Amino acid sequence: MKLDGVPSRTIWLERDGRSVGILDQTLLPHKIERVTLRTVEDAAHAIKSMQVRGAPLIGVTAAYGVALAMRADASDAALDHAVKFLAEQRPTAVNLRWALEDMRAALAPLAVNARVAAAYARAGAIAEDDVEMCRHIGLNGLALIKDLAEKKDGRPVNILTHCNAGWLACVDWGTATSPIYQAHDAGIPVHVWVDETRPRNQGAALTAFELLQHGVRHSLIADNAGGHFMQRDDVDLVIVGTDRVTAGGDVANKIGTYLKALAAHDNAVPFYVALPYSTIDWSIEKGADIPIEERGADEVLNVQGRLSNGDIASVAISPEGTPARNPAFDVTPARLVTGLITERGVCAASRQGLLSLYPEKKSAAA
Amino acid sequence: MKLDGVPSRTIWLERDGRSVGILDQTLLPHKIERVTLRTVEDAAHAIKSMQVRGAPLIGVTAAYGVALAMRADASDAALDHAVKFLAEQRPTAVNLRWALEDMRAALAPLAVNARVAAAYARAGAIAEDDVEMCRHIGLNGLALIKDLAEKKDGRPVNILTHCNAGWLACVDWGTATSPIYQAHDAGIPVHVWVDETRPRNQGAALTAFELLQHGVRHSLIADNAGGHFMQRDDVDLVIVGTDRVTAGGDVANKIGTYLKALAAHDNAVPFYVALPYSTIDWSIEKGADIPIEERGADEVLNVQGRLSNGDIASVAISPEGTPARNPAFDVTPARLVTGLITERGVCAASRQGLLSLYPEKKSAAA
Repeated sequence: MKLDGVPSRTIWLERDGRSVGILDQTLLPHKIERVTLRTVEDAAHAIKSMQVRGAPLIGVTAAYGVALAMRADASDAALDHAVKFLAEQRPTAVNLRWALEDMRAALAPLAVNARVAAAYARAGAIAEDDVEMCRHIGLNGLALIKDLAEKKDGRPVNILTHCNAGWLACVDWGTATSPIYQAHDAGIPVHVWVDETRPRNQGAALTAFELLQHGVRHSLIADNAGGHFMQRDDVDLVIVGTDRVTAGGDVANKIGTYLKALAAHDNAVPFYVALPYSTIDWSIEKGADIPIEERGADEVLNVQGRLSNGDIASVAISPEGTPARNPAFDVTPARLVTGLITERGVCAASRQGLLSLYPEKKSAAA
Repeated sequence: MKLDGVPSRTIWLERDGRSVGILDQTLLPHKIERVTLRTVEDAAHAIKSMQVRGAPLIGVTAAYGVALAMRADASDAALDHAVKFLAEQRPTAVNLRWALEDMRAALAPLAVNARVAAAYARAGAIAEDDVEMCRHIGLNGLALIKDLAEKKDGRPVNILTHCNAGWLACVDWGTATSPIYQAHDAGIPVHVWVDETRPRNQGAALTAFELLQHGVRHSLIADNAGGHFMQRDDVDLVIVGTDRVTAGGDVANKIGTYLKALAAHDNAVPFYVALPYSTIDWSIEKGADIPIEERGADEVLNVQGRLSNGDIASVAISPEGTPARNPAFDVTPARLVTGLITERGVCAASRQGLLSLYPEKKSAAA
């Protein structure tokens, strides 16, 4: 999507056809700086230091990291080392491991002198696949926004989103944001209510940044405010992303999503969840069985931002000694979800709905 | 309640019997400093600069401000001037105007030389009345906590609260916090989930401060987290304050209260609202008719806190140019409220419930 007015991605092959460019996301939303990755060590550092974040983007960065490694040494030993080394940078990232195994499977059978070209081609394909998947999620969600726009008589469709399921976490488009960008680019007037998303403020920092850069109308709001705007008929649609959807349609997403789903239900506002197929966990039926990560208290006790002199600083919002708790996700029960938007279409948040889009999973989900 | 281990109030007559002590709340939770008010100008400054905040406390400070004015000049002109001057400091504070008119009515009929003593006596009585009212709210709410404690087998009763309806807004006890302090002081084990309460962070800054100082077990949480803890059976009771309750039992309170009421309802957690009679607006039936104040975007775009060097600073959490919206309150419909806790008892959130406690209002509410 647009950055400084120019269509951009989070990761790209540089003009030299060898090095890889990324946006340094640790500086967002305060500074736009690009970084060039020239070695597998550079790629590893980008992953570990969270210059890149978001499951799809981490996977693509790792894939390019393997390509960079192959340029230095395309031996079997070097391939093994690169895969192991890159995987260690974010030990719990499933998508990272998936991308690395995909690269290994593509390269291992090849002659050593064929591996560099094949590695860049495969990494590029993984990136393009992600872009296409996100684009299709957007096209499928676009139909919902178009329907709403027809009832609004030229007034903007008001869409609320929580956290950042945007292009900054992917290569382009994003998941929850993709229908919004599609609608905006198609000339449908939209306005986005951006939940701040405490404690890490991904909405305030990343989603607001994305929308501002792409020129999409939006308003940042406290996480507390969405229910009020729904009561006042100022929200037409909610679209959020997800970290895991169960086979029964329960949705784990950033903490606070459940509260917005309750408010949407109470005010008859459609509540949709956008996701790629890889987010569906066919092995779990009920959301209550999803383990919820509890993160450090410091995220709740402190807020990071920009001082008036431009420096980035952290301030403590409570008295010293205040204890805090920090569950990172909550589970929205399927009964509160109007539908799921995937790269294949829109379905009900239920086993039956999911199987209508993914019939090949009938045995897996049985 | 306790401050530095010593039972304290937010406002008190100093030992000289003339000057008035207050806690400088602009420095909370980062510093505990007391200020002495010696003139009506001092009292006006304390109100305007928000060294004192919360409707009851502002009223008591204004009452003492009149007493300080009378010491300098007890003439009719001086009384008129003091009332007018103090009322101007917070133009929309209803309680401020109420306290000043009460003072005027008490002093105007008296001989000039009797006014100083009468003014201090009346200001003291207004303060004591507030303490007694809050104490009774606490005793009435205590019964609910006791009932829950009996089912917990010695484990703490987990109470969630939003914003600060605490003793810092009153003279002592607070409203929503009063049952909690009563239970704690009675030896009933309690643990309080303290909502951060963005955008102004009254929970993180004030409620956490109060509970820490009084020794009540608590955990600060993001406003997003309460629903998750209710789903996991970690909340036994919600108690919040209110800015206005309609004759029909709808509750206007700090933005985000409605979302917690929805979650409480969805998880069968009792949701109570604590209030003094003065908060009931008998002239309005439905919450939708309550005008909702919208405050400045800067409160959403920035967070104030303590830098690591101890300085108080504000940080911007969004890119420059992000628009924001900031409704300060929302309305929780009566159907989501288990009951109202007032100084007279506990009642249903309905016209019938309110009239059972305030039968003298039958004509007003008709």
